[in-house]
Amino acid sequence: MNTFGKNLTLTTFGESHGPAIGGVIDGFPPRIAIDTDRIQAELDRRRPGQSHITTSRREADRVRILSGMLDGITTGTPIGFIIENADQHSADYSELASTFRPSHADFTYQQKYGIRDHRGGGRSSARETATRVVGGAFCRQLLETRGITIAARTIQVGNIKALNETADPESNIVRCADPDAAKEMIELIERIKAQGDTIGGIIACRITGLPAGIGDPLFDRLNSRLGAAMLTIPAVKGVEFGMGFDGCARRGSEMIDEFSTAPDGSVITLTNNSGGIQGGISNGMPVEFRVGFKPVATLLRDVNTIDSAGRHVTLHARGRHDPCVLPRAVPVVEAMAALTLADLMH
Amino acid sequence: MNTFGKNLTLTTFGESHGPAIGGVIDGFPPRIAIDTDRIQAELDRRRPGQSHITTSRREADRVRILSGMLDGITTGTPIGFIIENADQHSADYSELASTFRPSHADFTYQQKYGIRDHRGGGRSSARETATRVVGGAFCRQLLETRGITIAARTIQVGNIKALNETADPESNIVRCADPDAAKEMIELIERIKAQGDTIGGIIACRITGLPAGIGDPLFDRLNSRLGAAMLTIPAVKGVEFGMGFDGCARRGSEMIDEFSTAPDGSVITLTNNSGGIQGGISNGMPVEFRVGFKPVATLLRDVNTIDSAGRHVTLHARGRHDPCVLPRAVPVVEAMAALTLADLMH
Amino acid sequence: MNTFGKNLTLTTFGESHGPAIGGVIDGFPPRIAIDTDRIQAELDRRRPGQSHITTSRREADRVRILSGMLDGITTGTPIGFIIENADQHSADYSELASTFRPSHADFTYQQKYGIRDHRGGGRSSARETATRVVGGAFCRQLLETRGITIAARTIQVGNIKALNETADPESNIVRCADPDAAKEMIELIERIKAQGDTIGGIIACRITGLPAGIGDPLFDRLNSRLGAAMLTIPAVKGVEFGMGFDGCARRGSEMIDEFSTAPDGSVITLTNNSGGIQGGISNGMPVEFRVGFKPVATLLRDVNTIDSAGRHVTLHARGRHDPCVLPRAVPVVEAMAALTLADLMH
Amino acid sequence: MNTFGKNLTLTTFGESHGPAIGGVIDGFPPRIAIDTDRIQAELDRRRPGQSHITTSRREADRVRILSGMLDGITTGTPIGFIIENADQHSADYSELASTFRPSHADFTYQQKYGIRDHRGGGRSSARETATRVVGGAFCRQLLETRGITIAARTIQVGNIKALNETADPESNIVRCADPDAAKEMIELIERIKAQGDTIGGIIACRITGLPAGIGDPLFDRLNSRLGAAMLTIPAVKGVEFGMGFDGCARRGSEMIDEFSTAPDGSVITLTNNSGGIQGGISNGMPVEFRVGFKPVATLLRDVNTIDSAGRHVTLHARGRHDPCVLPRAVPVVEAMAALTLADLMH
Repeated sequence: MNTFGKNLTLTTFGESHGPAIGGVIDGFPPRIAIDTDRIQAELDRRRPGQSHITTSRREADRVRILSGMLDGITTGTPIGFIIENADQHSADYSELASTFRPSHADFTYQQKYGIRDHRGGGRSSARETATRVVGGAFCRQLLETRGITIAARTIQVGNIKALNETADPESNIVRCADPDAAKEMIELIERIKAQGDTIGGIIACRITGLPAGIGDPLFDRLNSRLGAAMLTIPAVKGVEFGMGFDGCARRGSEMIDEFSTAPDGSVITLTNNSGGIQGGISNGMPVEFRVGFKPVATLLRDVNTIDSAGRHVTLHARGRHDPCVLPRAVPVVEAMAALTLADLMH
Repeated sequence: MNTFGKNLTLTTFGESHGPAIGGVIDGFPPRIAIDTDRIQAELDRRRPGQSHITTSRREADRVRILSGMLDGITTGTPIGFIIENADQHSADYSELASTFRPSHADFTYQQKYGIRDHRGGGRSSARETATRVVGGAFCRQLLETRGITIAARTIQVGNIKALNETADPESNIVRCADPDAAKEMIELIERIKAQGDTIGGIIACRITGLPAGIGDPLFDRLNSRLGAAMLTIPAVKGVEFGMGFDGCARRGSEMIDEFSTAPDGSVITLTNNSGGIQGGISNGMPVEFRVGFKPVATLLRDVNTIDSAGRHVTLHARGRHDPCVLPRAVPVVEAMAALTLADLMH
Repeated sequence: MNTFGKNLTLTTFGESHGPAIGGVIDGFPPRIAIDTDRIQAELDRRRPGQSHITTSRREADRVRILSGMLDGITTGTPIGFIIENADQHSADYSELASTFRPSHADFTYQQKYGIRDHRGGGRSSARETATRVVGGAFCRQLLETRGITIAARTIQVGNIKALNETADPESNIVRCADPDAAKEMIELIERIKAQGDTIGGIIACRITGLPAGIGDPLFDRLNSRLGAAMLTIPAVKGVEFGMGFDGCARRGSEMIDEFSTAPDGSVITLTNNSGGIQGGISNGMPVEFRVGFKPVATLLRDVNTIDSAGRHVTLHARGRHDPCVLPRAVPVVEAMAALTLADLMH
Repeated sequence: MNTFGKNLTLTTFGESHGPAIGGVIDGFPPRIAIDTDRIQAELDRRRPGQSHITTSRREADRVRILSGMLDGITTGTPIGFIIENADQHSADYSELASTFRPSHADFTYQQKYGIRDHRGGGRSSARETATRVVGGAFCRQLLETRGITIAARTIQVGNIKALNETADPESNIVRCADPDAAKEMIELIERIKAQGDTIGGIIACRITGLPAGIGDPLFDRLNSRLGAAMLTIPAVKGVEFGMGFDGCARRGSEMIDEFSTAPDGSVITLTNNSGGIQGGISNGMPVEFRVGFKPVATLLRDVNTIDSAGRHVTLHARGRHDPCVLPRAVPVVEAMAALTLADLMH
């Protein structure tokens, strides 16, 4: 189903090569002033063609808000919006009508539905994440009214890791806070792209200002809800919180976060191995998690595969694709985090 | 909220030191023959006191099924069940009424609710996972009627990793398929326990027989739903699918799973880096994922912390706890996977 | 599915002739003092055998609360409860294993599930409403902390209508506020019962103290949610709000509720034809609605019907049944209203 | 919230005087051929200005489908659509920015949200039902593939009742199957309109071809779900099934529907007092229910009311309104029934 959230929800629709994509934000509180230029600015961070290391598909990605606001203020009624599709090269995809690209959703959609829109991946295209960015951008402004900020950044591409994070990640096109690593990452992506290949990596996200008490015990734990949200992003294969998998090798005595009090009397922990979450509920410390993206499966080289009749064929892949999705996925990670928090805090 | 699932659901209740815990399974199909001895057998795998490396709390954990069956067959109506609590040492916990154990849910529950049942962790106790095992045991039998099996195993404790997985994981008390590693893991847990400390690790799970087409695009992807389920288990800090985080450093050309056809004509992939899921939907190959558990935070040694008035105090921890939760978490991982699949396939 | 509500939910289970019925209340706020004697008192109002005009089945209907409370105060965790079944005359029902009682759920359950618990109607028995009364009794106490009261009463049995409502409806066994009509209703039910027949009627419900602004536009309108709740009660065939069907014959100029202000400055309406709801949202006036109950279908006389093989048979009905459900349905109407409001106000 | 349904859902957005209204249909099955001309034809039945007894607002109400279909066939992905607003006389409504129309949602929205779009009722305008008609039109075509038909008709306007239903209700502008009554109803509406007044009435709906077994016990009973759907339609104040409120005065022996078998061996009932539903589940007979509409509250005459400061004012109502909503509500009743059934049968 295409609705995210329980109380504050985003419902989305639209195929990569249909007339438009769009969505409905429901349960958004009334009387929140929304800066629509900032909504568009978030979309621009995800926009294809924003740099030479992203896909060359050109979409203006202008969002048109259709309801739910009066004179720049939300009214509490649902916010409908659409983004028209423009630069559709549907002809690029005729070969795919009867061929399954390896590690794409072509085969699984066909198995599930018995029909699929093969043009540009149809609904399985990452293009749908644009609608999530719109929803997240509304939620970000809502969360800001409560002092909550969400910031993601690229921390690994291939084997290149950010070590010395001193810069604004928005200061470079790969969105990495380590300027030296950023330079290496960009060069790696350029090489990978020249080879018609792709590369994966890791994005880290940090939420600050979140009060203690957010998240529910058992089945709506903050980590479960955030993790589920991240695992809905195309190409994500893993998510970890706080010390994550590394912490699994450790002893309890190394890992517990000792409580103390801040000068203002508030309860803090001296370390944050828990990543701001204990028992599934925020403890007031920053929430920290990491999201692993596999290399996307679209290679601009010949690939062996099968067609819908089970015959072995060679696919001469064309189309326009991202050699590395991480730069454009940073705003998507933030958007999904914002949607999750706004829903849980509703 | 305490309901898991959308179409086939488990709703649970109960505190560690209340009179009973229990649950309701709703949406379970009619006319499924259920072997209730096997339900109990699953509970026994999770039971405290099952070996010298688990907590010494003694609970018979006998499940009493109250509805939804007629002569051993499900009727399609909700299945209610309870498990009476027996071995409650509530006096062990009087100190905790006003003290927050580090890295436990004491502080976060207090912040969220302004009240908490401090006895044995109350609702935040992992004791509630017994009700999930009951729900999962019903679903396992349902899935078996469709040829689906779910098997989890311990693959890492501390820094000891299973490398040569040749044995039945149920053949040793740590539930590891590498007999040599199992021996080392048990020795490590014995040492850790003697020190009043705890240790984390990793559980792997494999689902076979799942047909292609399970999972929904976008927000109910199979990996998102399974990942969310795992992240609801106490102490879980990470989850990854297929090649997981390791695959994030790779190139697309290394990672794509080439399609082929099996002798029976069915579509297979020659590798399974995707872990059986593409575009959020199962592709018919085995589903593979790993779940990282932090070391539990209950140390049987003095710990510095604060009380509810913000005063620094030393906590003289008592009670009965697991030095390593992994052996008892294996059936919980399986149960949550079974609940997730039964819900998605409903 | 067996869960009522979205944010504050009641999930129920149990068959008429199984070992026990019960439920789970989830989302109930923490720190609410609950008088458990009053929970039991509500159950006693619904209890079979409470007077000579109700069924002679004898059930103590003692509720056992298993979780969610500490020292008489709710903790915010789910409230599990069970009611053991005692007086089961299952032998009375052997004839029904293969025969469909007219206008009962025997046939429809068999069609839906291919299996049914025929003993006493199984899950379709009105016995399950006892669990709703428990859930409603908790919610009533929650609503009282906000000054909201819910009171239902019998206003019609057969063709006898309450006209002069001056008494406490709890002062007579038919729960009617018109003492003269109550006397006639009781006599009618006695005659009907002697004939092995049954009779229908109408219950009215009034909610006071509800603030303006409760209910959501569109699909969660207060009248839709209350109406849906009433239509889940066995034997209910109609529901109407304010002037209801009678108002449908009127002109707008007769029906609009003119606004004015009360001495305390609050907005009121001079009439209440809308029944306290405008645009699906409460307007601060009392909410008024009526619920129509058909005569129950269980006749203590021979009835022509068919069996599961389609053969015409005569059913010699036995068992113990209510000649008129209204007296015992009054607390069920209140319970469902309380559950609905507590959920919407959550 | 603005989503209807659980498995097959309609999410809607849009204000009366915003740029557009629209919605998303999710969970619609793949591989269903959709005749989009018939979608538009349903909208035309609801269109304002279709006859001299409806509002004179002129809207082409052209639906634009944005996703979820490929070459006239559904793909299983969400169906997004919009309807642009055209004939907005927003200036007509300036007086309403600070004045509450009696028996409208102006006051309740203001109380709930602290802000409202006063132009044409904003979200509370019945204009939003156009999106429901689109959703229902898709579901109608889906249900037709299973042999299910839904037909509603006007049976009462004011005190004029249809008695001799022999004609196609679509053959006259009031949509009544009794030609003589239809003539009287139209004359009554003309008189009422000339007086600036409004009038209520009753719509009946009949569902044929529904197999036995649809609807769930307890909280998703077919009557509850249909009733809830009807009570979400603006101006609806009552709903009843089968014999409805009239049957509440009857005896069980008069009301039970005796089973028999049809020549083809299928189980039927000799009467249909239950309206096709027993125990909340369809029994294979036609489903019959009636929906009561109050007279709409917008009078084209001076009305006494209060403004947002609590001052008594006279409202000089303008705008364009329906003297009787029933003719245009007939397709809305059908649409909500279609959405309900498609969801329950999913």
